[in-house]
Amino acid sequence: MERALERLSWPEVRAAACRPGSTVLWPLGAIEQHGPHLPLGTDALFADRVADAVLAGLADDLPIWRLPVSWFGFSPEHTAFPGTFSLPAELVIAQVMAIGAQLAAAGFQRLVLFNAHGGQIALLQVAARQLRAAHPALAVLPCFLWSGPEGIGALLPEPERSDGLHAGLAETSLMLHLQPEWVGPERPCDGQLQPPPPSGWSLEGAVPNAWLTADLSATGVVGDARGASAALGEQLFERLVAGWRQRLDALLASPWPPRGRLRSD
Amino acid sequence: MERALERLSWPEVRAAACRPGSTVLWPLGAIEQHGPHLPLGTDALFADRVADAVLAGLADDLPIWRLPVSWFGFSPEHTAFPGTFSLPAELVIAQVMAIGAQLAAAGFQRLVLFNAHGGQIALLQVAARQLRAAHPALAVLPCFLWSGPEGIGALLPEPERSDGLHAGLAETSLMLHLQPEWVGPERPCDGQLQPPPPSGWSLEGAVPNAWLTADLSATGVVGDARGASAALGEQLFERLVAGWRQRLDALLASPWPPRGRLRSD
Amino acid sequence: MERALERLSWPEVRAAACRPGSTVLWPLGAIEQHGPHLPLGTDALFADRVADAVLAGLADDLPIWRLPVSWFGFSPEHTAFPGTFSLPAELVIAQVMAIGAQLAAAGFQRLVLFNAHGGQIALLQVAARQLRAAHPALAVLPCFLWSGPEGIGALLPEPERSDGLHAGLAETSLMLHLQPEWVGPERPCDGQLQPPPPSGWSLEGAVPNAWLTADLSATGVVGDARGASAALGEQLFERLVAGWRQRLDALLASPWPPRGRLRSD
Amino acid sequence: MERALERLSWPEVRAAACRPGSTVLWPLGAIEQHGPHLPLGTDALFADRVADAVLAGLADDLPIWRLPVSWFGFSPEHTAFPGTFSLPAELVIAQVMAIGAQLAAAGFQRLVLFNAHGGQIALLQVAARQLRAAHPALAVLPCFLWSGPEGIGALLPEPERSDGLHAGLAETSLMLHLQPEWVGPERPCDGQLQPPPPSGWSLEGAVPNAWLTADLSATGVVGDARGASAALGEQLFERLVAGWRQRLDALLASPWPPRGRLRSD
Amino acid sequence: MERALERLSWPEVRAAACRPGSTVLWPLGAIEQHGPHLPLGTDALFADRVADAVLAGLADDLPIWRLPVSWFGFSPEHTAFPGTFSLPAELVIAQVMAIGAQLAAAGFQRLVLFNAHGGQIALLQVAARQLRAAHPALAVLPCFLWSGPEGIGALLPEPERSDGLHAGLAETSLMLHLQPEWVGPERPCDGQLQPPPPSGWSLEGAVPNAWLTADLSATGVVGDARGASAALGEQLFERLVAGWRQRLDALLASPWPPRGRLRSD
Amino acid sequence: MERALERLSWPEVRAAACRPGSTVLWPLGAIEQHGPHLPLGTDALFADRVADAVLAGLADDLPIWRLPVSWFGFSPEHTAFPGTFSLPAELVIAQVMAIGAQLAAAGFQRLVLFNAHGGQIALLQVAARQLRAAHPALAVLPCFLWSGPEGIGALLPEPERSDGLHAGLAETSLMLHLQPEWVGPERPCDGQLQPPPPSGWSLEGAVPNAWLTADLSATGVVGDARGASAALGEQLFERLVAGWRQRLDALLASPWPPRGRLRSD
Repeated sequence: MERALERLSWPEVRAAACRPGSTVLWPLGAIEQHGPHLPLGTDALFADRVADAVLAGLADDLPIWRLPVSWFGFSPEHTAFPGTFSLPAELVIAQVMAIGAQLAAAGFQRLVLFNAHGGQIALLQVAARQLRAAHPALAVLPCFLWSGPEGIGALLPEPERSDGLHAGLAETSLMLHLQPEWVGPERPCDGQLQPPPPSGWSLEGAVPNAWLTADLSATGVVGDARGASAALGEQLFERLVAGWRQRLDALLASPWPPRGRLRSD
Repeated sequence: MERALERLSWPEVRAAACRPGSTVLWPLGAIEQHGPHLPLGTDALFADRVADAVLAGLADDLPIWRLPVSWFGFSPEHTAFPGTFSLPAELVIAQVMAIGAQLAAAGFQRLVLFNAHGGQIALLQVAARQLRAAHPALAVLPCFLWSGPEGIGALLPEPERSDGLHAGLAETSLMLHLQPEWVGPERPCDGQLQPPPPSGWSLEGAVPNAWLTADLSATGVVGDARGASAALGEQLFERLVAGWRQRLDALLASPWPPRGRLRSD
Repeated sequence: MERALERLSWPEVRAAACRPGSTVLWPLGAIEQHGPHLPLGTDALFADRVADAVLAGLADDLPIWRLPVSWFGFSPEHTAFPGTFSLPAELVIAQVMAIGAQLAAAGFQRLVLFNAHGGQIALLQVAARQLRAAHPALAVLPCFLWSGPEGIGALLPEPERSDGLHAGLAETSLMLHLQPEWVGPERPCDGQLQPPPPSGWSLEGAVPNAWLTADLSATGVVGDARGASAALGEQLFERLVAGWRQRLDALLASPWPPRGRLRSD
Repeated sequence: MERALERLSWPEVRAAACRPGSTVLWPLGAIEQHGPHLPLGTDALFADRVADAVLAGLADDLPIWRLPVSWFGFSPEHTAFPGTFSLPAELVIAQVMAIGAQLAAAGFQRLVLFNAHGGQIALLQVAARQLRAAHPALAVLPCFLWSGPEGIGALLPEPERSDGLHAGLAETSLMLHLQPEWVGPERPCDGQLQPPPPSGWSLEGAVPNAWLTADLSATGVVGDARGASAALGEQLFERLVAGWRQRLDALLASPWPPRGRLRSD
Repeated sequence: MERALERLSWPEVRAAACRPGSTVLWPLGAIEQHGPHLPLGTDALFADRVADAVLAGLADDLPIWRLPVSWFGFSPEHTAFPGTFSLPAELVIAQVMAIGAQLAAAGFQRLVLFNAHGGQIALLQVAARQLRAAHPALAVLPCFLWSGPEGIGALLPEPERSDGLHAGLAETSLMLHLQPEWVGPERPCDGQLQPPPPSGWSLEGAVPNAWLTADLSATGVVGDARGASAALGEQLFERLVAGWRQRLDALLASPWPPRGRLRSD
Repeated sequence: MERALERLSWPEVRAAACRPGSTVLWPLGAIEQHGPHLPLGTDALFADRVADAVLAGLADDLPIWRLPVSWFGFSPEHTAFPGTFSLPAELVIAQVMAIGAQLAAAGFQRLVLFNAHGGQIALLQVAARQLRAAHPALAVLPCFLWSGPEGIGALLPEPERSDGLHAGLAETSLMLHLQPEWVGPERPCDGQLQPPPPSGWSLEGAVPNAWLTADLSATGVVGDARGASAALGEQLFERLVAGWRQRLDALLASPWPPRGRLRSD
């Protein structure tokens, strides 16, 4: 079955939207600096490739389709580096609201925001909440590529598992697997905090800091890419794809999420 | 030392902002339904009271001040219940940007967004990032009241520790301690998912869902308030206050967060 | 009766809104420079305290409730002084529209904008008109603390009665009564026009000028605080409270204002 | 001297703006219902005609020019009647900010907002303040046609002097003088409050109400047009013109308003 | 018949809007530099005068009315020259949407945007499309003064016919006919491209360039005004008026444009 | 040379932007109904494929790069058909302004908007003008895929050459060549005007109409797809690619467009 919405005709989309449990997956990335060795479009490429591989493994009759990857995202932390193209938060929210409203009007029942850029997880949660409140019949599920599947963390040693926030071991390895010719020769290790945060504070997590990459790093990397390999990248890719395939299978077999006591739009 | 900015005169604010490491704490809450038994302003009240207790315990010469609590927040998930007064996301971002820009212009060096409403953690992270990128010299630290301190979780049994998202054991107990006359007689247990989410999915966390309270709950509660007590509330309050006091002490004694390689505004 | 909306539960708010003539009082102030001797939050504090005292004197069964005071206002005239935190006009309008729409949706029938900042009288009239036109069933009454009650002017000598626009005799005295420990030792006399306006023109009034405080004053004061006293402040407070109590009593006993021939929302 | 800016070439405007005390008069009106007998454009027409007559009487070498009248204004109170074309408040503010910024950039030193629509006095004061704060070197004077000149009130009997808010004696008479062929045969007396407001409240003034015309009037008139005459209109016109001419003369002969201690834009 | 909407009363507008085929003509211009010899308001004046002459020639019973000319337009290409007052694109769109929505609500059936400023043809097409999509029952026809009528081109020699974009032969001649006292003595020939564009590219047309006047011209003129004459202006005026009169006659006699399968607003 | 910006690292982008004449090509399409037989993403696919083929034919050392295709566009005319995902005009302008500002900040010197959706030609011209005025050093060239190259028209018979506006002979043929498996079996002939427009008026062109597809067509097609063939599609593709290649070659060999007398940003 053709799952790319942009390849369907309008009568096909109309029929798709009417199927029970009809679901749209929207991959979202960014075009932003990814260190001296990774391409600007790393996040968008990852969202796109994993989405394709996941959908390719689903049973053909499941009512799920995808939108093209959204290239431009919200990357204010990287704007001090050339090659970062960031949209204002308000614009991203408005874009998600506009497209989501039209998916809801067409009759789709679920929208999965399949995001690969860590810097816009929060923004997409905000947009998802506001979209859902405006169109209660459309379930909205804001996901992060690297958060869902089990087993990813086990492939990454500490401190990279916790502190490798950008263009480090995991991303470099995954790109070496997917598109090695786009990876430059550098393998930076940068962005380590010297000295560490005061007790109880951290870059991310429970008590975070709205850091800019230039606070931490001269190369644009926050992490350690030295041990990156295509072999690790292949393992990461397989677990990402398997993990998300399992999740989407479970989602499509269920009535999740609940929708109740709705106000009409 | 008077720490409430609104009680200072302008020459006093000018002097305050110029002190090394000058820091402003901005408590943020919401006015939204909190079940049949808790007041609409629960989150704002918590932010306000904990902030006051924390600041009261800091050494008098530390360069930290506070703004009045922000009452209205971002509560789209609760708008199906009367008594919820939610601002659009764009408006909250614009408000944080406007006030933050004026704090930066006055010379303040850090802004701690001290938020007690779980539904706007993501939004304040977005606003913080965008504010920081526009005014790199002002560090911005978006915090969540319940996330920072250690030992909170240990006071709450499962499943409430994980699933008590709104107006459950913790909030009811804390309010019983702080303001028992504002707590109604009901002790709802509501919002339990029947059936549970499909494998790998959840309300919150790694693979979340932009839920509306009305999806889950008839009372507005998502959690179990049955065991709430003023005694538990007192313990929670003490740990919250001690935890945040320790964190702010550590913050003010350090150059955290780093600010480097700034573009000029 | 508990009149603070933020202390009610949602079922209590639902019941409140349904009472005939249900009315919400929203105190509004500002955080802006108030000379070298008065606190930034002077206007907000006045709105808050007078509102509380007025409501405390009303018969218990009258259907009136209040929102928390709005601290940040529209203060472009003072932004040259540090400690002024002003929101753009568009933001204040949008905030009043958002909260007012939700009050109307809940069923409230009147909204009194109880404003103590002279610099935003016009803005709140604009917001009130636009809110009313969008939600004709919600009456909106934009008031100014110092304008309503009779007898205020009689307590103030000329030229202060006419020209004491900011942080002069009246405000200094009222603060000396309400919170003397927040008043600094200075008693400026500043902002006098030398030379006076040309014939027919004035700072305020029929042919006004969009003045900035820095046009007129080095201290931030436009007026003469030299004669300020707690005794005068007490008289002002009593007349303010009595005047507004009388007005609200009359309002609640009447069908005012008329609402007719409405277009549906 | 040609005073209409739209008739000058750009080198002429450049030269005009550089003259000491260079002043621009911007007439503003509205297109809104004006009862069954007056044209929609009444306010705009009055602003335009009075402006022309005033300028025609000034000495030829005074550095003052005018913009074309702004036809569309802010008229939310009249939108229930067809023929009302009202712009949102935010749009009017943005328009004044945009044009004002370009006047300031060209070097003009004063902008007189010469407004004839009572429903947008407050809005233009807001826009003026925000414009001035953004461009302190441009003085902004938001005026109301009917408020400035002395002797207008004396021509109008009570209660029309106080309560004739829209399309009553004054406006009908002035139009009968200026353009009698645009006045219909009706002479409504409408909009009288029955019963009167409760003690201390009023439609306009110290304790106002954000009224809609449809609350008060079936015809769109709030006032009493029965005694209108071209003779009265002529008297009104003469006093309006003489009054504003005197004021502008005084303004141009003075350094008013003061501009001091400016922040740069 | 009075065709100026601003001269009608609201009952007259209500009756006008209900007539079958009711049509509103909205002339739109700009206030922008027009070389050293033409007035800033050239475009607005042309739109206004041609509209009046066209309407004066239509049969009296045709259901067509006009709005006052819109003076301020979208002129970013000219902002480097003083005397240009340009509104942001978003503001012009919002203005057209607001007025159009109120025309649609009143019951009008067609809106002709009668624009004389070449720099905003595209913007008005955008606004027209968005307005039509929001209010499908209101047909919207975005026209350009100089594009419609036949025979205009024949009056202009090459290269002026193709390259005379601004303040050249046609505009100078037309102004000499309409208002010779507003035309200065200069007759610039400026804005010629040296060297010409590379093969396949052009200033305007199929493969255009978002040029700014200052890229091309020191005088603000893009064209050759040397041969301008009132006689040519008269011919242009006659063909413009005759051409538009014929078009409006045809429009009013037809059901054009089609409106079908509408979604309700 | 790698020409896809999203595949470069940030140091590579920095170097690219600094090359004399550095140029970015941004393909833009839409996701909108394209009749019962063509995919929603037709326009975006065309922009993307032609851009790739054109760039592949340029000399390797020319300083030109491309952005990923922009999938969502401005399609208000098609929103009555499911499968159309249109962004508001203001959002598209803001997106072009944001990305363009960052290209300018990085140092790029030209931006070619390479658009394949006829419904947004005007919008992109507006955005281009506003972007250029805000960042004069960045030349902006808003192009339409089908308008540039010679010889396209000659391949299309009348009336399709003039009236085949959407999903007709040309688009169907081109898709049959590029991606025949995405073309459905229907070959509609629809959208013919019966009766034709009144004299002087037209759907598009000199005196246009802001039509909605649903005014004209039940299938979504405005044109005649009956004669479509892959062979014709191949010819169209070759001429499109050759035409644009020639144009870009000429552009890159020239200093076009001129940039002069710039105001600084």
